Amino acid sequence: MDIIPSLVAVDWGTTNRRVFLLDSAGRLVREEQDDAGVAALGRKGVYDAVALLRARFPQQLIILAGMVGSALGWREVPYVACPAGLGSLIDGAIRDETGQIILIPGVRSAPGTPDDVMRGEEVQLIGAAEAGLIPADCPICHPGTHAKWVDLRGYAIQSFRTVMTGELFALLKAHSILAPALAGPVQLGTSFQAGLAAGLSSRTLGADLFSIRAKSLLGHLPLEDAASWASGLLIGADISFGLAHIPSKPPVALIGDPQLTALYAAGLKAAGRDCFELDGATAFIAGSLALAQRLPCPA
Amino acid sequence: MDIIPSLVAVDWGTTNRRVFLLDSAGRLVREEQDDAGVAALGRKGVYDAVALLRARFPQQLIILAGMVGSALGWREVPYVACPAGLGSLIDGAIRDETGQIILIPGVRSAPGTPDDVMRGEEVQLIGAAEAGLIPADCPICHPGTHAKWVDLRGYAIQSFRTVMTGELFALLKAHSILAPALAGPVQLGTSFQAGLAAGLSSRTLGADLFSIRAKSLLGHLPLEDAASWASGLLIGADISFGLAHIPSKPPVALIGDPQLTALYAAGLKAAGRDCFELDGATAFIAGSLALAQRLPCPA
Repeated sequence: MDIIPSLVAVDWGTTNRRVFLLDSAGRLVREEQDDAGVAALGRKGVYDAVALLRARFPQQLIILAGMVGSALGWREVPYVACPAGLGSLIDGAIRDETGQIILIPGVRSAPGTPDDVMRGEEVQLIGAAEAGLIPADCPICHPGTHAKWVDLRGYAIQSFRTVMTGELFALLKAHSILAPALAGPVQLGTSFQAGLAAGLSSRTLGADLFSIRAKSLLGHLPLEDAASWASGLLIGADISFGLAHIPSKPPVALIGDPQLTALYAAGLKAAGRDCFELDGATAFIAGSLALAQRLPCPA
Repeated sequence: MDIIPSLVAVDWGTTNRRVFLLDSAGRLVREEQDDAGVAALGRKGVYDAVALLRARFPQQLIILAGMVGSALGWREVPYVACPAGLGSLIDGAIRDETGQIILIPGVRSAPGTPDDVMRGEEVQLIGAAEAGLIPADCPICHPGTHAKWVDLRGYAIQSFRTVMTGELFALLKAHSILAPALAGPVQLGTSFQAGLAAGLSSRTLGADLFSIRAKSLLGHLPLEDAASWASGLLIGADISFGLAHIPSKPPVALIGDPQLTALYAAGLKAAGRDCFELDGATAFIAGSLALAQRLPCPA
């Protein structure tokens, strides 16, 4: 028999979807994960998938966050501008006709600052602060396909910058001349640390990336170490940029996939910064509960 | 009737092949270009293609340069180390059994300096100097899939660094989230200049690349300008790195595909450096003739 949750919260990205079923006390009763991202489904597929969720959970509040609210998704919700806190997300959210499906907006940079956008991470970041999992004033790094560096103050995202670190690594691994060298696993060892050091002082990724090929051809980088070195390089360059964009004193909250936050924690340590890790799923649940509690009742 | 040349010189890369037929006075009598690169052909295909050339030109000297001398090519010729001039290429060349097919080695960095490799460009660069098309002491940029920045002194490559600019652009255009934005042509206009300025001062390509998506979504970069801006960004970052690796006073020789050298010329001008352009095909012919003249007669 299917579980009857009180709240259904969906973190719906480009390539993946995570569905969290929560009971009336806010406890996670089931998590479902699949590759039904909006890019794979297409607009018609997303529409059908939302209808399926609706049919399966006819009485429950369903919160949708992430790329499902983009032009590629179910309906497009305009970004809310920084500074953006829980109230901004609620004010910018869109409800369907039943009032039971809520589409959460992404966040954009404030006018006059460098252009940037996020969709999905905002629920995690603001949710973590609202739930007291991180301080109300906190520099945050959210690693991933498009890593985010966020200045959170007063429970609100004041500014942020994106680095497409995860996407670059995936492109290089799948399609570049480095693909054979990057086929192995990334491990948090000496090769990763050496790549980090190169990345933290990198002037041009294009040169350091080619050096992976040169080092391999000249016998100075064993094939089994290349993926770790490349990951360290990209994460080091990411951190070097990101630290320039967040306040310099408090420990950095690393929120996201635990495998990734572990790599970034090693990188921040190498850069001399304190940090702590928080699972992105935990943060997303916290954000969804905060939204559900503060959302006005449907008319 | 097929032309009967005196010398056949082949610039044989990963994805393309250019065959130059030269008469006894060193004049180009025909140029043939196809996509029979070593990656497309595979080892067996390269072997057959060399046999075809041999059958077609049984009496002529055939010079093969580029990736045809790599582990993916016809036979692997070990790299010669910097400093590398015409004599190094001749000493490191491999002849087939007939003595009529000559495989030219690539060049590697000197031991104790940052690892780097080239295959194919060395014939153009040394050839251009030997023929007096560029000075014997000359900073060189050879843009392309893997752009090279070279310190040439005394007709020899003293050191060089590679930046995988062309490959990054191709990867982003073909496979990334930026692909739709990068579908248009690259034009040498204001968007390219704006990208150049960003690239010359870029700290992390991963951040500036994502900004293309953010600018597009927020309506600050028209779709038709995105490819030019991205090209400017990558070339600007390339130049910023490259200029740190070559002597700072003399004009930079830009050797390569004329469409690319034009973009890099605009970039060097924006960076305040004098430069002049030379067609890579002209330089390759000069290098092949210099090699043919200096090669010892087969035993």
